[in-house]
Amino acid sequence: MHTVSQYQEFVIEYLQSQLEVKEPKNLYEPIHYILGLGGKRIRPVLTVMSAEIFDVSYKKALPAALAVEIFHNFSLVHDDIMDDAPLRRGNTTVHEKWNTNTAILSGDAMLILAYQYFEFYEPKIFRKLAKLFSKTALRVCEGQQMDVDFETRQDVTIPEYMKMIEYKTAVLVAAAIKMGAIIAEAATENADLIYDFGLNLGLAFQLQDDYLDAFGNPETFGKQLGGDIIENKKTYLYLKAMEFASEADKQKLADLFSTQIEDNAVKIIQAKEIFVNSGAATATQKAIEEYTFKAFDLLDQMKIKDDKRQILRAFGENLMGRKV
Amino acid sequence: MHTVSQYQEFVIEYLQSQLEVKEPKNLYEPIHYILGLGGKRIRPVLTVMSAEIFDVSYKKALPAALAVEIFHNFSLVHDDIMDDAPLRRGNTTVHEKWNTNTAILSGDAMLILAYQYFEFYEPKIFRKLAKLFSKTALRVCEGQQMDVDFETRQDVTIPEYMKMIEYKTAVLVAAAIKMGAIIAEAATENADLIYDFGLNLGLAFQLQDDYLDAFGNPETFGKQLGGDIIENKKTYLYLKAMEFASEADKQKLADLFSTQIEDNAVKIIQAKEIFVNSGAATATQKAIEEYTFKAFDLLDQMKIKDDKRQILRAFGENLMGRKV
Repeated sequence: MHTVSQYQEFVIEYLQSQLEVKEPKNLYEPIHYILGLGGKRIRPVLTVMSAEIFDVSYKKALPAALAVEIFHNFSLVHDDIMDDAPLRRGNTTVHEKWNTNTAILSGDAMLILAYQYFEFYEPKIFRKLAKLFSKTALRVCEGQQMDVDFETRQDVTIPEYMKMIEYKTAVLVAAAIKMGAIIAEAATENADLIYDFGLNLGLAFQLQDDYLDAFGNPETFGKQLGGDIIENKKTYLYLKAMEFASEADKQKLADLFSTQIEDNAVKIIQAKEIFVNSGAATATQKAIEEYTFKAFDLLDQMKIKDDKRQILRAFGENLMGRKV
Repeated sequence: MHTVSQYQEFVIEYLQSQLEVKEPKNLYEPIHYILGLGGKRIRPVLTVMSAEIFDVSYKKALPAALAVEIFHNFSLVHDDIMDDAPLRRGNTTVHEKWNTNTAILSGDAMLILAYQYFEFYEPKIFRKLAKLFSKTALRVCEGQQMDVDFETRQDVTIPEYMKMIEYKTAVLVAAAIKMGAIIAEAATENADLIYDFGLNLGLAFQLQDDYLDAFGNPETFGKQLGGDIIENKKTYLYLKAMEFASEADKQKLADLFSTQIEDNAVKIIQAKEIFVNSGAATATQKAIEEYTFKAFDLLDQMKIKDDKRQILRAFGENLMGRKV
């Protein structure tokens, strides 16, 4: 096996080998642009790593890994339109750099291109990969719709929120890692366990994203700090605060999150204060830990050699930073 | 075999059996809405007919037929956003009835749902169908992009225009009809011939659409009559007029198509006058005939029984109305 940064290199190298100039330019240039913006490439790395965990060369998993990465970027392009986001990975979003129509159409083409990468596999594997992919992709859309719906609802519960982030984020991480197992024709039991490992890691990852959005280091956090607070997003932090805070603080938080305030700096400080004082910040950290430990527990149940188990564990620990 | 209207009924019946209420409602309601708006269901009918031409029950082809119909409707939902169209099949478009974000996301889900219908088939057939589908879907996106690009170009040629409508419209008709052959495991030669039959019929169909947009009967034409003229679309009629018309008329037509005029009624009358006087209207009718005859010629080359050949020919003649 290789190191995570080596897998990243393999994925990027393969990605770049695929970016030939195609016509019409206005369709393909935005695709190359967004795919070239970088990012951590977590999902494709998981796909190729997973293949090697099950004793198949990462090379065989590269097309599926790229399918997952292209799909992930497709969802970013379309989500950024819906959120009217100006920046992605520190760069202008596709719909801002070009226009909304281009972002819609290039996104559509990316979704189709993702499917085409499964054509590298023989029929049985192809069918399994495409089936898992479709199911996953549909859930990502459902999760995005839930996210949109939650914006105008005041009664979102923690279980509903967890389902939303499971669909919007975690299932794709889980599918990415399971694809490696499918390509390696791993035993069903192992393939299912590694899927659940990915799912729990994905949930922990998204909760951490919620946490870092408020409490992250501005120098290392890629997005605008406090962005969720500015946009009145009902994250885990918010929902837990609405559960735990004093009546006065609940009212204050609800007020903060029901208006667009001019001075966001004050809004962020006040919201964070309630997140901390109510115990919501601690509860979020605890939930991150729980999902991470659940992932590691599933890892322990897998029938693989301990050195390979250790590699996945190290990846998880690294991904979750110093939280665990 | 059955009649075309029977095949339409089978397709609609199957479609309706698939429209279960699913959550989140805001994602699935627009999908059911657009799929329920009707339309001629030409593409799915071609898929099931084609299966029966090659001696397999239409029932086996229903899932693939629905995949094609869902994809077609996906492309309408996204195209209507891009064109800012208020009406589709006489009803409010999805982005107008809901909003742009909903139309983007529901469209995305439809593209994925389309792929899921191929899961009804065993791996080898599944792979062939999905591969043909992806290639086709990507071309549809490329065709749509060309269409957008042409809006701001003054030097579009007839061959470029033909390539655009081939990609945007004809390849899906061709793929729809070939899918029936794939499901029936028809000989490759026949499958390729029926694809080309569909392609030429699709080209004739789109040219007829161009023609009817200007010269159709307002009582039977589903869209706004003169819509292409209002939107300054460089259709076959326009391009031929720019080739054939007098210098004065060319200038007049170019002027008409370079501004947004308040009184569209006058613009439509003047453009149509030039289309007729230049001979562009006649040239368009001639091209429709040529592509239709080319389709019938390909039909004659197919190794199928004459009664089945006759059914496809009758379908084509009916589709092209009294033009042929």
